[in-house]
Amino acid sequence: MESVDTLVCARWVLPVEPDGPTLADHAVAIRAGRIVAVLPIEEARTRYRADESIERAHHVLLPGFVNAHTHAAMTLLRGRAENVSFGPWLREAIWPIERRWVDPEYVRDGTELAIAEMLRAGVTCFGDMHLWPEIVARTAAELHMRASVGLVVVESATRWASGPNEYIEKGLALRDEYRGDPLVSTFFAPHAPYTVDDATLLRIRRLADELEMQVGMHLHESAWEIERSRELHGLRPLDRLKKLGLANPLLVAVHLTQVEPSDVDCLAAAGAAVVHCPQSNLKLGNGACPATELLERGVPVALGTDGAASNNDLDVLSEMQTAGFLASGITGRPGSLVSKDLLRMATLEGARALGLGDVTGSLEAGKWADLCCIDLRVPASWPVHDVEATLVYACSARQVTDTWVAGRHVYAEGTLRYLDESAVLDRADAWRARIDAGHGGSDE
Amino acid sequence: MESVDTLVCARWVLPVEPDGPTLADHAVAIRAGRIVAVLPIEEARTRYRADESIERAHHVLLPGFVNAHTHAAMTLLRGRAENVSFGPWLREAIWPIERRWVDPEYVRDGTELAIAEMLRAGVTCFGDMHLWPEIVARTAAELHMRASVGLVVVESATRWASGPNEYIEKGLALRDEYRGDPLVSTFFAPHAPYTVDDATLLRIRRLADELEMQVGMHLHESAWEIERSRELHGLRPLDRLKKLGLANPLLVAVHLTQVEPSDVDCLAAAGAAVVHCPQSNLKLGNGACPATELLERGVPVALGTDGAASNNDLDVLSEMQTAGFLASGITGRPGSLVSKDLLRMATLEGARALGLGDVTGSLEAGKWADLCCIDLRVPASWPVHDVEATLVYACSARQVTDTWVAGRHVYAEGTLRYLDESAVLDRADAWRARIDAGHGGSDE
Repeated sequence: MESVDTLVCARWVLPVEPDGPTLADHAVAIRAGRIVAVLPIEEARTRYRADESIERAHHVLLPGFVNAHTHAAMTLLRGRAENVSFGPWLREAIWPIERRWVDPEYVRDGTELAIAEMLRAGVTCFGDMHLWPEIVARTAAELHMRASVGLVVVESATRWASGPNEYIEKGLALRDEYRGDPLVSTFFAPHAPYTVDDATLLRIRRLADELEMQVGMHLHESAWEIERSRELHGLRPLDRLKKLGLANPLLVAVHLTQVEPSDVDCLAAAGAAVVHCPQSNLKLGNGACPATELLERGVPVALGTDGAASNNDLDVLSEMQTAGFLASGITGRPGSLVSKDLLRMATLEGARALGLGDVTGSLEAGKWADLCCIDLRVPASWPVHDVEATLVYACSARQVTDTWVAGRHVYAEGTLRYLDESAVLDRADAWRARIDAGHGGSDE
Repeated sequence: MESVDTLVCARWVLPVEPDGPTLADHAVAIRAGRIVAVLPIEEARTRYRADESIERAHHVLLPGFVNAHTHAAMTLLRGRAENVSFGPWLREAIWPIERRWVDPEYVRDGTELAIAEMLRAGVTCFGDMHLWPEIVARTAAELHMRASVGLVVVESATRWASGPNEYIEKGLALRDEYRGDPLVSTFFAPHAPYTVDDATLLRIRRLADELEMQVGMHLHESAWEIERSRELHGLRPLDRLKKLGLANPLLVAVHLTQVEPSDVDCLAAAGAAVVHCPQSNLKLGNGACPATELLERGVPVALGTDGAASNNDLDVLSEMQTAGFLASGITGRPGSLVSKDLLRMATLEGARALGLGDVTGSLEAGKWADLCCIDLRVPASWPVHDVEATLVYACSARQVTDTWVAGRHVYAEGTLRYLDESAVLDRADAWRARIDAGHGGSDE
């Protein structure tokens, strides 16, 4: 018999890749943080001697969810800017608060809260975009969370960097620091078409090509963005990126709610990916990404929650559900995205969009053991005629019982094992009190 | 000091009515199953001597949710008919299974599962439409759940009734049996325009007018329904109801996804109510009820989950969230339905649509103590800048910690106190196995 560290045995297993029917009574064998095999429980018991064997009799075991787009530290602003559309939300509500309050401590506290929320919800990897990305990277690594950290670039000065040169310089230093790290990776994150100039975008393109790094960017998020780009550049933002050479397989277009047929052609030809953030887009009145249409044209679509100030949570399972409702409701063709498609978007496609398709996002031998387990034997999810449909349409992330990142059992028995949750919640509440009271911060 | 049975003290209280800001550190005093007062905790402690005092330090206390439209027993078919649009879903997937399997035992087992799910999710009242309504009524009463039971009428024979006369006769007997019952009430439930003839609708109208009972009906649920009505009657369904005298304040139009300006005029003039079932409508590709437009015209809108075979759960909190996303996303006007509006739709408007607006749906002295309590101190709902927005957009029904129906503490400490949940789940699973295997039932 072969030795493994852990054998997780579950009533149902959804590996995502290889594609196939739901596996009943299967196990995942884990050694040194990686998946060794996915196989029937009986066979696993004869083939492997496990240091730890975990039985989940009424549960579905699947790859951890990948939140392909968020701003983790914005958890501190959850519910702070309601009932406004995207433009005023960003310019009048969020930016002034962020200019006043965001500092390394804020980013650490907000990111810790976000990681606590995500690990509880079975999310094992997130793509982030926020100032002080080095704090995000360090926090993720310390809490044993997988993260792809966006190297943010904007034209204007912030307390983190004085201008494009410094953003890029600091970003590249961060990239070098985490090269080869088992948990943290990086991507270029020029914020949006309306905050980054052509020269900076060209420079990012050259660096990204050379270093083979993804370029994630808010793109076609709102009608206002399109209009402004037309005024300033005489082009829609995606056409502008194309002109600058950024429409290529490294591009990850986040949001994409404003889509003309030529945009779909452009993305398909470019081999670019899209991150669909349905709840944020709806809530801010921006419309919805036409995910079905993009997928039918071969454009990969991942899922993101966006930040908690627009959504208001970091729950990928719930985004999967909303994406499903939207797909059926908007196309009028139920099943235009079936539950299996949605699960793939919430896992493997997310990993791919973050450049991590080879290391996470599915239960395949050799990949990191990033997984979660969900109890289906609760009244709201029972009986189970169809595991995937139940997962997508009758499950809450609060039913997640276990989360593993790189084989480490980070969430179990209702407890996050590597952080002091109560202290994290207290610090978050202290930030809330300070922000709502409105005094202090960098302006004073 | 005055004696009360129970004092529930919570960090935040949302009474819904009277309308006003979130109440901080308030209590609800309960005596003989009814609300005596809603007042600051400190004042409550000096005014009342309570047999039981319950402290919920990080929780929001609010009226129990009202699920204004469901088919409770369909929980047994959760996930059984995926990826099909409404017409084939109903005629090819659901009806054949129901013809074969639905009997009193099925209705009891499915309704028990539904009540278990709803009480856990803070739902304290549901409007039902299913064959064997007497079983639904008895099950609700036994499990201490409030229900308004639809007296189903269709033209065709089922195992429950041979034709309209018998449906109505049995329905009226059920109504008489439960008159004055503290938990169970009834309404007329002619199934849909395509399953009930004019003569039957006229008879129901006369009875409803005489007995002052609501008439709940699936209406303008799908484009197919409109088309069929035009072919058979030369009228849209709502126009047909108007011609028959059914467009009046007793009408409760369920779904209403297909809406022309004249429909809004008709409903507004009639004083009728609408039940919005956003998840079911989207999932079956039927579109969405224009809730904002209806509310702006003074048409009351409640929320329903529909049955678990189309949704796939009975989670009113989640419907409230979807309704909010849809309202902002479809109108492009975030805040066209604010969180407070959504909460009112999910509680008081539901009670009103079921004819129960005087007895439940808000925390007002004299009403039954139908309430629920939700823990907000979890990473996904913290910090709390805005209680209502957090409730709607960053909460799961799985965070409900307590549910009371008519003052009875039916759900507490993770346990349903008046049913054997494990047995209910086992029976549901046995039905699943039988239905999926496809043998047995009434056809054999």
